[in-house]
Amino acid sequence: MFKIKLSDVYRSYIACLNQQDWPKLEQFVDENVRYNDKQIGLSGYREMLEKDFREIPDLHFNIQLLVSDGHYIASRLSFDCSPKGKFLGLDINGKQVSFCENVFYEFHNKGKIIKVWSIIDKANIESQLQRIGR
Amino acid sequence: MFKIKLSDVYRSYIACLNQQDWPKLEQFVDENVRYNDKQIGLSGYREMLEKDFREIPDLHFNIQLLVSDGHYIASRLSFDCSPKGKFLGLDINGKQVSFCENVFYEFHNKGKIIKVWSIIDKANIESQLQRIGR
Repeated sequence: MFKIKLSDVYRSYIACLNQQDWPKLEQFVDENVRYNDKQIGLSGYREMLEKDFREIPDLHFNIQLLVSDGHYIASRLSFDCSPKGKFLGLDINGKQVSFCENVFYEFHNKGKIIKVWSIIDKANIESQLQRIGR
Repeated sequence: MFKIKLSDVYRSYIACLNQQDWPKLEQFVDENVRYNDKQIGLSGYREMLEKDFREIPDLHFNIQLLVSDGHYIASRLSFDCSPKGKFLGLDINGKQVSFCENVFYEFHNKGKIIKVWSIIDKANIESQLQRIGR
């Protein structure tokens, strides 16, 4: 019997994001995906990611920790990047910042992401901005 | 062979926090625990929690999602509470706020927490404060 190894699917999903291979996104993300309890759908999900890459041209997703159990993946992602203008309401203006995102994913039976609950470490970015001077 | 079920250990740890049973904390947390990449040790961990309960008298930890794999637990915790003054640098002043924390724990061989990587959804609290008026 073939059993999908969810952590492998997830690593391919992250590679897809880093390659900005948007036509491939539907292989990983369900049509009716919910993001932080809002139904944004695949098209909304893709728009969100495309906007992220427009605003952060050097965006790259790095998996720091991956915890997988049943239909769930929890991942700690790290970023080292330079948002062009505002990010999370903060004036970054091209400064380089490092931060993490702790994020949970629920996959349905066919191995696609149906729910995402993400938190980005905004407080950490704020303290970096204070250190390097606004 | 007796095998510790880490999710059960974790649920007992959360019960310990909610009961503010600080002498029991050492059953769950290692002497040399690291929190967000800083070695704070068991005493620092306890001080942090005691401070949280002083500043948020109605603090209660609710497990929304629990993902367990090997030596790791990932948990999405939710809170409905009223911090008395400042919280995460925000002026809460007794207003009721709801927010989540996405947090990873590494346990060592003896089933105690040795590393924690936590992110609290500060951006969500900020938008609630904007809605209800500062």
